[in-house]
Amino acid sequence: MQRQAIFSGVITPVLTPYGEDGAPDPDRFVEHCHWLLEEGCTALAPFGTTSEGNSLGLDERMELIEELVDDGIDPAKLMPGTGTCALADAVMLTKHAVDLGCGGVLMLPPFYYKAPSEEGLFRFFAEVIEGVGDDRLKVYLYHIPPVAQVGFSLPLIGRLIKEFPETVVGLKDSSGDWSNTSAILKAYPDLEVFPGSEVFLLDGLRNGAAGCISATCNVSAGAIRNVYDNWQGPEADKLQAGITAIRKAIQAFPMIPALKALIAHYRQDPGWAKMRPPFTELPAAEAEKVVRTLADAHGFSLDFSEAA
Amino acid sequence: MQRQAIFSGVITPVLTPYGEDGAPDPDRFVEHCHWLLEEGCTALAPFGTTSEGNSLGLDERMELIEELVDDGIDPAKLMPGTGTCALADAVMLTKHAVDLGCGGVLMLPPFYYKAPSEEGLFRFFAEVIEGVGDDRLKVYLYHIPPVAQVGFSLPLIGRLIKEFPETVVGLKDSSGDWSNTSAILKAYPDLEVFPGSEVFLLDGLRNGAAGCISATCNVSAGAIRNVYDNWQGPEADKLQAGITAIRKAIQAFPMIPALKALIAHYRQDPGWAKMRPPFTELPAAEAEKVVRTLADAHGFSLDFSEAA
Repeated sequence: MQRQAIFSGVITPVLTPYGEDGAPDPDRFVEHCHWLLEEGCTALAPFGTTSEGNSLGLDERMELIEELVDDGIDPAKLMPGTGTCALADAVMLTKHAVDLGCGGVLMLPPFYYKAPSEEGLFRFFAEVIEGVGDDRLKVYLYHIPPVAQVGFSLPLIGRLIKEFPETVVGLKDSSGDWSNTSAILKAYPDLEVFPGSEVFLLDGLRNGAAGCISATCNVSAGAIRNVYDNWQGPEADKLQAGITAIRKAIQAFPMIPALKALIAHYRQDPGWAKMRPPFTELPAAEAEKVVRTLADAHGFSLDFSEAA
Repeated sequence: MQRQAIFSGVITPVLTPYGEDGAPDPDRFVEHCHWLLEEGCTALAPFGTTSEGNSLGLDERMELIEELVDDGIDPAKLMPGTGTCALADAVMLTKHAVDLGCGGVLMLPPFYYKAPSEEGLFRFFAEVIEGVGDDRLKVYLYHIPPVAQVGFSLPLIGRLIKEFPETVVGLKDSSGDWSNTSAILKAYPDLEVFPGSEVFLLDGLRNGAAGCISATCNVSAGAIRNVYDNWQGPEADKLQAGITAIRKAIQAFPMIPALKALIAHYRQDPGWAKMRPPFTELPAAEAEKVVRTLADAHGFSLDFSEAA
């Protein structure tokens, strides 16, 4: 029996803009989130890797998500990142998200200690889920071994689903390895699986994926949504080739600073490009090159004229 | 001109015991810290890697350190771990430690995002130091690439010392690579350098190191202190061989659970062995094997009879 999907479609791990003082800028953040939903995103995943989520303090994360809800964004469309290395902090962030009505949370495994055992990771998630103790909690496992180093094996995913069938309902696979995504889709057909890049969107949908959660949705949501809406149509492969080409052009640059450079350019708001350490902004020449490369080769531009 | 050393000798990254409910147990923790100082530790570094420090929540860390100071431990002898991935949290923990009078802090670099630039890491530390904004702050850089993956290059260390000569005063090198420790000692003779293992204690002292900060000090502080006190004497090499042998015997097991198993055994307090996820306790047979191996081959035991 297939469960009714909680999340599906095109989900953006939202970039985090900063003010002059280096603190997260709630105004730019809320404005960007509204724009993403208008562009066609079905949901938002603040505090992912692209969001510099792990560079944000616990209080900063909770305040930003409250700003979104206060500003009228439906919390059912929010899947904030709440995984941290520390059990107590992960429980606190997750409880906060559930209490705000967030539709789900995207949880990294604890990533400081390397090569933890399957039993240790299972216990971590079990203790978070029991610590939150709320039936409304829906957990999406965040598998991103290139960054977190620690990830989710097939047996671990299976054990978590079996023990918490109403809570562990999905997974984002940012392994960049289609064979891994494919194996998860085959092994756990009821799981809401999101490849971490729109490069795998069409292949994913054809094999039961729920959509994608991808950094580049910050600037390409409309085109990606178009693939999602037309994946069974005659143009699907052609549309997919278009979004794949843009993704590849962007990821030739350092991804997060490049995305911010694009938004800063088209919003005519240089402050948008600011990064928090340990990241640094693209040098001006590189930022210009991202804009020019995408415009010249792909006719890429962003339109903020109707934005709030 | 050589600055007066702030820390030197034998420093323990203190194990963190838990209660039945899985929360840190302040009573066992304070008792263990007092015992370590009686055993000959010159200082304590709570919330290091051995402490499962990154598995502890921000509030848990601040509360535990307050317990130590409230219970009469001289904060000048404390060098808590305050590095986190998030700038805001690192500032908060560091400020809290300085306000309590801690002699120093041991700071990991932000370790989620891999391969950050030297400039990005420099900015991170600069922003923490400026964010704390207190002349009493003394930072010890925590280099542990086998776990954190992100570390401190020689040029980065040099840049931080040059920019913050009164603040960045030391480094713990847990690379496990003597050639790296040796290169740091040669390049920065005024830096208080602590190898992360007593295996390098004598070599370190002969080359200008300040002592060592080592996991096994939790159970071998007396013998390690003996090497520190007698490193210029005729027995130094023999004493060093003794502590090296015990270290190697312990590290044949998973280090942190093995240390807790030893303390649980000799305190006759099975609860001491508890680990927080993602770690798990040693299975009973392995725990017995640690105790037996060390007792049989090295005459090792722990005496808690005089402990409070």
